[in-house]
Amino acid sequence: MARWEPGAKQRLVVAAVDLFTEQGYDATTVAQIAERAGVTRSTFFRHFTDKREVLVAGQETLSQLLAEGIAQAPATASPLEAVAAGLERASSEMGPMNRALGPRLKAAVAASTELQERDALKSVGLAAAMSHALVARGVPDPTAQLAAELGVLAFKRGYTQWSEADRDDDLGLAHHALAALEDLRVATSTLS
Amino acid sequence: MARWEPGAKQRLVVAAVDLFTEQGYDATTVAQIAERAGVTRSTFFRHFTDKREVLVAGQETLSQLLAEGIAQAPATASPLEAVAAGLERASSEMGPMNRALGPRLKAAVAASTELQERDALKSVGLAAAMSHALVARGVPDPTAQLAAELGVLAFKRGYTQWSEADRDDDLGLAHHALAALEDLRVATSTLS
Repeated sequence: MARWEPGAKQRLVVAAVDLFTEQGYDATTVAQIAERAGVTRSTFFRHFTDKREVLVAGQETLSQLLAEGIAQAPATASPLEAVAAGLERASSEMGPMNRALGPRLKAAVAASTELQERDALKSVGLAAAMSHALVARGVPDPTAQLAAELGVLAFKRGYTQWSEADRDDDLGLAHHALAALEDLRVATSTLS
Repeated sequence: MARWEPGAKQRLVVAAVDLFTEQGYDATTVAQIAERAGVTRSTFFRHFTDKREVLVAGQETLSQLLAEGIAQAPATASPLEAVAAGLERASSEMGPMNRALGPRLKAAVAASTELQERDALKSVGLAAAMSHALVARGVPDPTAQLAAELGVLAFKRGYTQWSEADRDDDLGLAHHALAALEDLRVATSTLS
């Protein structure tokens, strides 16, 4: 088997999420994931440290894209406009595979406390990435943290709506994420 | 040893956090925690399912207190005023032991990914408890989730400030949590 296997990482993610959903997270082994994806165990370990890491495969990339979009927003952009630019940048990299994984991932996470914990830490990581990018633009701390939390909520809500929307009516993740951000922005005026 | 041991649970929490900080989370066993607290292993297992659960000992109580405060706020209270009532209710139950544990808990969590994940899921649980209590008051969903997130941020910021404040100048947790909530409320007007 060739050392360089194009698509191996993506196939491992799909295989893992399918197995988690079919037979549960705890019952799934690295060997089974590798077999389902048609690669060796050592190929698995070139991409991931353990089976849990499979689920956060995209987290680092996602954090980078969100931060990049925020950094590249016009200097005149408000904190939420910069967050919107981050959501658009990240959404542009999410394709049909990400969309199809949504409901399966949700089912796998709902069934495992360990995955819920990993998922919760993932949200904390995304919020921190956005908050740091906002602070680097000169946004003061409480505002940056708040805008970042709204960004995470909007991304999660938007991703759920996108994953669950009619297949034939795909407006794209960016559309759903930005609509969710706008809902949250409007909601800030009803807090006090 | 008597089956009923007053204070055993609190002693176990203090012993566990001290051991996590002294020698690391991974190196600490249930047997060591029980020994340090002066109780048997079976007493440990009457209170906790494993060593990680020690760190969330107060989570269920905290969720209940936050929800209770929100439910009991006057009918005319705004979403954030209800959250403030929740923070006050929860703060009223936090004494000197909770305050002293703050920096030690922080050090133990900073040193362990596993504890960071547990801690992240704890925040998700607190936000859900507050959000549900707000929805039960008739607050619509995006506003409820947003107000709950502000409540969690305010509680964490307030708890850190309270734990790290001068020992002789204790204004109480409620003071710090409500001040943090007010900072966040003001920050909402600077988002867009």
